[in-house]
Amino acid sequence: MTAQEIRTRIVDVVMRNGGHLASSLGAVEIAIALSETFDPKKDKIVWDVGHQAYAWKILTGRNEIFSTLRKTGGLSPFPNPAESAADAAVAGHAGVSISVASGMAAARDAIGNNHVVVVVGDASIANGTAFEAINNLAEATKKLIVILNDNDMSISRPVGSFAKFFGRLISSTRYNRVKYAAESAGHKLRLTFLRTAYHKIESRIKGLFVASRFFENFGMCYIGPVDGHNLEALKEAFAVARGDKRSVIVHVVTKKGRGYTPAELNPTAYHGVSPAPLDGQAKKPRDWSCAFGQILLDAARKDERIFALTAGMRDGTGLTPFACEFPNRLRDVGIAEGHMLSFAAGLAACGMKPVVAIYSTFLQRAVDQIMHDICLPSLPVVICVDRAGIVGADGATHQGLYDIAMLRCLPNLTICQPKDEQDFTALLNEALERNSPTVIRYPRGAIKKSVQPYIPQGEILAAIWTTGDWVEKANAVASKIAGCQVVHMRTLKPFDEKLLASQRAQGIKIISLENAATSGGIGEAIGADLKFGWPDEFIPHGQVAELEKLYNLDVDSIVEKLTYFLNTPPHNKG
Amino acid sequence: MTAQEIRTRIVDVVMRNGGHLASSLGAVEIAIALSETFDPKKDKIVWDVGHQAYAWKILTGRNEIFSTLRKTGGLSPFPNPAESAADAAVAGHAGVSISVASGMAAARDAIGNNHVVVVVGDASIANGTAFEAINNLAEATKKLIVILNDNDMSISRPVGSFAKFFGRLISSTRYNRVKYAAESAGHKLRLTFLRTAYHKIESRIKGLFVASRFFENFGMCYIGPVDGHNLEALKEAFAVARGDKRSVIVHVVTKKGRGYTPAELNPTAYHGVSPAPLDGQAKKPRDWSCAFGQILLDAARKDERIFALTAGMRDGTGLTPFACEFPNRLRDVGIAEGHMLSFAAGLAACGMKPVVAIYSTFLQRAVDQIMHDICLPSLPVVICVDRAGIVGADGATHQGLYDIAMLRCLPNLTICQPKDEQDFTALLNEALERNSPTVIRYPRGAIKKSVQPYIPQGEILAAIWTTGDWVEKANAVASKIAGCQVVHMRTLKPFDEKLLASQRAQGIKIISLENAATSGGIGEAIGADLKFGWPDEFIPHGQVAELEKLYNLDVDSIVEKLTYFLNTPPHNKG
Repeated sequence: MTAQEIRTRIVDVVMRNGGHLASSLGAVEIAIALSETFDPKKDKIVWDVGHQAYAWKILTGRNEIFSTLRKTGGLSPFPNPAESAADAAVAGHAGVSISVASGMAAARDAIGNNHVVVVVGDASIANGTAFEAINNLAEATKKLIVILNDNDMSISRPVGSFAKFFGRLISSTRYNRVKYAAESAGHKLRLTFLRTAYHKIESRIKGLFVASRFFENFGMCYIGPVDGHNLEALKEAFAVARGDKRSVIVHVVTKKGRGYTPAELNPTAYHGVSPAPLDGQAKKPRDWSCAFGQILLDAARKDERIFALTAGMRDGTGLTPFACEFPNRLRDVGIAEGHMLSFAAGLAACGMKPVVAIYSTFLQRAVDQIMHDICLPSLPVVICVDRAGIVGADGATHQGLYDIAMLRCLPNLTICQPKDEQDFTALLNEALERNSPTVIRYPRGAIKKSVQPYIPQGEILAAIWTTGDWVEKANAVASKIAGCQVVHMRTLKPFDEKLLASQRAQGIKIISLENAATSGGIGEAIGADLKFGWPDEFIPHGQVAELEKLYNLDVDSIVEKLTYFLNTPPHNKG
Repeated sequence: MTAQEIRTRIVDVVMRNGGHLASSLGAVEIAIALSETFDPKKDKIVWDVGHQAYAWKILTGRNEIFSTLRKTGGLSPFPNPAESAADAAVAGHAGVSISVASGMAAARDAIGNNHVVVVVGDASIANGTAFEAINNLAEATKKLIVILNDNDMSISRPVGSFAKFFGRLISSTRYNRVKYAAESAGHKLRLTFLRTAYHKIESRIKGLFVASRFFENFGMCYIGPVDGHNLEALKEAFAVARGDKRSVIVHVVTKKGRGYTPAELNPTAYHGVSPAPLDGQAKKPRDWSCAFGQILLDAARKDERIFALTAGMRDGTGLTPFACEFPNRLRDVGIAEGHMLSFAAGLAACGMKPVVAIYSTFLQRAVDQIMHDICLPSLPVVICVDRAGIVGADGATHQGLYDIAMLRCLPNLTICQPKDEQDFTALLNEALERNSPTVIRYPRGAIKKSVQPYIPQGEILAAIWTTGDWVEKANAVASKIAGCQVVHMRTLKPFDEKLLASQRAQGIKIISLENAATSGGIGEAIGADLKFGWPDEFIPHGQVAELEKLYNLDVDSIVEKLTYFLNTPPHNKG
């Protein structure tokens, strides 16, 4: 397939199914050149954050089923070794690819003869784990090929000094001249340039390049910059990299959204696209993230000590209005979750009120910093955990199911979850006044203004302890079962132990219902008699409603199981 | 106090109490110069990994109580803001100091006028979080002072390309000449040199310095290298750094163990010292770490696919014999836990059998990598979690209490804990044959050859479910209570659900006893009727036996509470 055909296919499917458009459009020629230079069956191609990798999926035997992308039971949204041998590694979280790939290369050094290639973006390569891998590379393996896909973009703007290396490099006169010459005189001159820089003959040219020097300090040969939309140039560069005995970094310059004008003009809006009929406009309904941004902005107007922190997710976490109004108090640290949480600790230790906005799944990168820098000194950092619970189409790498289990063990930490916007406002403002750390978790999707827990008439036989967006689900369940009460756990830690003891004393059955992994979750915390939540397996991508049904977490399934439980004598329960 | 008096005090107390000797001896002059250049009451001094900071404690009002170092109720082994305002931040885990300090500096930019200084070692600064902080520094704050304490050492040897920057720098002819000139001609020439380099006048000198260029790329002014045992030179350099309006890095070269010959000659052996009468010999009894090293070495002799991985803890984790016999299959990645786990995933994905040795508390840095790169693709990585459970004198930052809670939620993961060496051998070999990831956790301290769970005669009233080193404790408890059985949970996940159901059906009370946080622990997993474990608060430093008594986890306290529980009718239990 030609690059144009692949782009048409990607735009077509993503516009219908949703997905990551801009990144994937930018990496089409890289994927083609890789598939032609390397052997996907034998060589290991690792994509860092696989939302660049749609073209790779199409090129490696998955074009026919590409229309099932992100659908329940369909093609994974990210590279998935369980889906295809051409996907060497899972790639949903940024920054780990060079580590994984250098492990693969070390294994190859020991017993194999294949190539290992990693494609990493300029935002991901600035992640701490990526740096650890680069620092260790010379000792880890004899040879790894790193393709730096430099599109001058994180999901939104590039941040950090490291990102500027590339900016400086690309805007240098020398590069512009070489690029121009290559475009006019074609292929031959470009290749000459590449080889010259590569073999360190013309060292003065290289003296211009901060990035090349940086990577050479870490034992890598530097090739580039290469025009990432010139297929011939890419194939030549990759062939040179393949032929060398040493580790090589190929610096490729691409344009996010390439070939689809609306995405080229506004790549941030087209980073993730919702499945909807679009005519150049990516829409976003009022959701939990928007509500968060508004509540925080209101609070920040009254208290100048409030800082908002994000790790490359300003738009996704709803912080864009905050950034517009208080640019100095919005800190986007790039894809650096660990740093962000410790940075927040420093702010809090000196009297500020830092509010961290982070997705549940990416918070996993900062668990130690939360324990060591925030909870141990009990600093008043507010951690707003977005995308907590099942996220749906982004799949197994992105489900926000483990935050409760990982954080509930940490002393001094308050963990809460609002059921609606009214509650969210109150909880966030309470957290800002609390003199110790708080986690507020909330899901992806639409937020309601006000939701009241269902209160039954008559004798209470069972109490469903639940929280957040699933209060509504519990209400629906309770309304179908006589004597069933709903308890909204506004704070999960600590929880209302008195109420629990009182219900137990009355012989009320305690039921838990949580949008999180049951293992380590609130059901275990309260010692529930029956626990509803996500089971001990990775939950794949799909429509949320379909996944809930598949895992018997829809209202009907819960009603059925709970009714059976309540009507069955204890000795028959299994 | 003079540097000599401080050194004598440190050696005297550490030889009696145990502690971190070599690092603290190396940083004495740095601490003195800091205390004389900055105001410990107003300025924020952050130490990265506070085992450098004993001199700082002595100099900031804690000399008299320094003899209580690491004792139960005594002085903390690491900087602790709860102990003294001179300790700006908790500092037990490496690599987070620049993040925390840049948060403090950002707060100062907003409302204060103090200085913020961070002292970071050459091993810690190569950590991923430290890199994220350096990358973000120019955007985070106008001014931060970073003191790079370059002793050319991690806990053992330096690793990684970054570390070599400093090596190249120090060994350069130019530096040797300047250092020599400074030592002979004294103070004036040195200062001239510093100012010259600092103000970028003599750029050719700086051209020699890879490290200086590296830091300047990240927006920091570079001063150095400075002789870290020349107090006047340090004070001048710090004064220049204090006076500048920009962020500054002062590169200080020190010698680990300085002033105590045995530690100078063998700094690794004197990194951590056990409290014992020593005459220049640091001894180590056969413990769980030694046993691990031996079991793994035996396995590695039979299977060349086995790799051992450590993050700067080769000696501490017992891997030295392995390193001697299989140097190519021992990979020390430096203080880079996140990278290590993803690197292991890459090895496993290509047919190797990576075994990661890591302390429980440092594993917290790699939770996401375990989830995303290891558990999700279900790769056969063996993670050996050392120092799991209470560690004692190293205190709150180092207690290994949270690994069960943080890992138990991850699908595809087997978690087990051996009770003795026989069991350890079997579990490690089983793990090496398993085609999915395994965690084996074990504590600090002595290992027994063989321990059998106590089996009572007659009717069973209660079963104590426990694991690892605490099987012995459970045996002691059970032997004092009639009808009390001990269940060794060899695997915590999955656990023996059939046995549990059968015991429940017989009306046997289920008791859990774990050397971990109760919150999220095995007691919750099995829904124990009574749970013994560490409570929901940070556990300070102290003798393990004393801490167990303090928290009612000694045998007598457990017997008392359990007896009361078993003899009290349900409605009276509180």
